[in-house]
Amino acid sequence: MIKSSALSPEELRNTLHWRYAVKKFDPTRKIPDPVWKALEESLVLSPSSLGLQPWKFFVVDAPALRAKLKPVSWNQSQITDAARLVVFAAKLEVGPAEIERLLNRIVELRKIPLESLAGYKAMMQGAVLKRSPESLQNWIARQAYIALGVFLTSAAALGVDACPMEGLDTAQYDHILGLPAKGYTALFAATAGYRAADDAYAELPKVRYDSSEVLAHL
Amino acid sequence: MIKSSALSPEELRNTLHWRYAVKKFDPTRKIPDPVWKALEESLVLSPSSLGLQPWKFFVVDAPALRAKLKPVSWNQSQITDAARLVVFAAKLEVGPAEIERLLNRIVELRKIPLESLAGYKAMMQGAVLKRSPESLQNWIARQAYIALGVFLTSAAALGVDACPMEGLDTAQYDHILGLPAKGYTALFAATAGYRAADDAYAELPKVRYDSSEVLAHL
Repeated sequence: MIKSSALSPEELRNTLHWRYAVKKFDPTRKIPDPVWKALEESLVLSPSSLGLQPWKFFVVDAPALRAKLKPVSWNQSQITDAARLVVFAAKLEVGPAEIERLLNRIVELRKIPLESLAGYKAMMQGAVLKRSPESLQNWIARQAYIALGVFLTSAAALGVDACPMEGLDTAQYDHILGLPAKGYTALFAATAGYRAADDAYAELPKVRYDSSEVLAHL
Repeated sequence: MIKSSALSPEELRNTLHWRYAVKKFDPTRKIPDPVWKALEESLVLSPSSLGLQPWKFFVVDAPALRAKLKPVSWNQSQITDAARLVVFAAKLEVGPAEIERLLNRIVELRKIPLESLAGYKAMMQGAVLKRSPESLQNWIARQAYIALGVFLTSAAALGVDACPMEGLDTAQYDHILGLPAKGYTALFAATAGYRAADDAYAELPKVRYDSSEVLAHL
């Protein structure tokens, strides 16, 4: 059986304290391919409600595209300086066809009869088809944020720096990357690479509320 | 400087494949305190847009409360059998006072003058105060899903099993746990502990779409 790598609590704690939202990447440093492949896999393996995976991850490699995205990203340098840029996008159409697609994938991978999934199908139909279009898009977007959390934590565990990027002009992202024609719409992005030696933010105290304010036992 | 523990790509990959949504926990196994403390810290340290941390994590320890939550959670056994149950809740009021609270926390921890944060304050005001109440609550909820991704990945890295739990009767969660009176509303939950030896789901192939379907390079 596959085993977890089982970090110690201290190693996890150090990893999470080491992580921060990089403001300035070292533009000369690339992520080694095996490391990046593992990070792409962390996205593919991210959990989602009902296993629907209502998303796509667009890794923007073309320098010309990244240059176009920068001005619609508050001109943040990470967009062009980070070794990698991932745009997290939501699937536009999640309905009966998408439910069938997932059921067929389960049948294919687990080699079980489609009929055995009738209860699961009904549960998905209840969760997906009863929603208003707006509620559905909000629910889909939430799933993509799970993948963001998985990606950022995975990057830290690999010793790769990252920066989550919200507040982008997602309509312009859609336009520049041609996402709606592919069936998706941009939600937010994440950059990954290595912090510049002079990123002043690296050594600032992390700003979090005291655990007594954000965590309680009942 | 604090260092990341730097897993190898293979170790990360094994960790993420080892992880799955546990259906049946071993009710006799508890999580050692230092391990659980690190997982609580992963929640506290989760990133959020603008650093707002518009959330609270309620760890439900009382068996009587967990017994009450089970019937409003589709009677799923994880609610009572897992070593730990965390309810992720959104802050109900995120407005000018919450922006001031964060600014004051930054001043306290980074020992800088409040005036130096004027630009950041304006950015937060733009991001928070211009939203409709519904848009604001949706945006807040999305942040909590980042914390879920961080928690699930951190648990896997520590060798702790977990199960994210959506589709709960969150109105009943609010009522049973008294969350609105505390200023919060339940979004979803996560259970953590150790898989039962006979959880059939542990050995089933993970169902994900081929990476070519959910990830693309542009």
